[in-house]
Amino acid sequence: MHAIQDLYPDDFAHCYGCGRLNAHGLHVRTEWTGQEGVAVFAPRPEHVALPGFVYGGLIASLIDCHGIGTAAAAAMVAAGAVPGGDPSPRFVTGSLHVDYLRPTPLGGELRLRARPVEQSERKVVVEVSVFAGDTETARGRVVAVRLPESMMPGARGV
Amino acid sequence: MHAIQDLYPDDFAHCYGCGRLNAHGLHVRTEWTGQEGVAVFAPRPEHVALPGFVYGGLIASLIDCHGIGTAAAAAMVAAGAVPGGDPSPRFVTGSLHVDYLRPTPLGGELRLRARPVEQSERKVVVEVSVFAGDTETARGRVVAVRLPESMMPGARGV
Repeated sequence: MHAIQDLYPDDFAHCYGCGRLNAHGLHVRTEWTGQEGVAVFAPRPEHVALPGFVYGGLIASLIDCHGIGTAAAAAMVAAGAVPGGDPSPRFVTGSLHVDYLRPTPLGGELRLRARPVEQSERKVVVEVSVFAGDTETARGRVVAVRLPESMMPGARGV
Repeated sequence: MHAIQDLYPDDFAHCYGCGRLNAHGLHVRTEWTGQEGVAVFAPRPEHVALPGFVYGGLIASLIDCHGIGTAAAAAMVAAGAVPGGDPSPRFVTGSLHVDYLRPTPLGGELRLRARPVEQSERKVVVEVSVFAGDTETARGRVVAVRLPESMMPGARGV
């Protein structure tokens, strides 16, 4: 199976956080296990907050894109489509909340787990946990909404 | 006057979002006007969400570092120190909330305004607004806490 983000249409695949077509981006990749979205990310040395710890804005970015990818997967399941097999619908972030539970050590991989907790046709709410080893270091909540017409490629002439 | 981040001690000046010593970072710079923290940031072309719009994770990062810088300024005022003149104390992010009010157009400068709304010795809560031109496109809330001992440089042997 593919990652959810691998199956966004090309026009929607430029996101700094998760777009496969963004040469400078983070390339967050969400895989759907059947119950939750999972992702693994290795922060770069420059993604530092204080020496030895991961930058909180990076953690927020990972939660954002992994939450959006998981929302897409949940919407696909609800519609009878196959996450990671069929084209992924594009959601955008309505709101993002992150609680930094403890400092996240810099130097290894982070694992993310995301669970859809509320769902309608227009909106999916996703809770995301970030783990360093077995320790949950941050927890987030993403309100994902269906892409509005005003953000469709072409709406701003681009 | 200097930006708040210019006066963090060297050990605390590596942050990807605002550290003057991070060669790859965003270099968010907060200036204190006497009533609020202000900052200006020009997203790079790669900081895209969908074509023509700024990536939400970048917006979260700007709100984070500008909120933390404004918290430092508020703490300095409370202690009788001069924000932008005296050394800045280092706060870290306890929680971060962002409401994306409308899509943020990519291509110009963003302006940030931040106001401390709650304050104690240990904690400062800061509300941050992001403007593209005259339009407020995002609004955030940062709970800033004094740097814990466990994150002091040296605590992890770095």
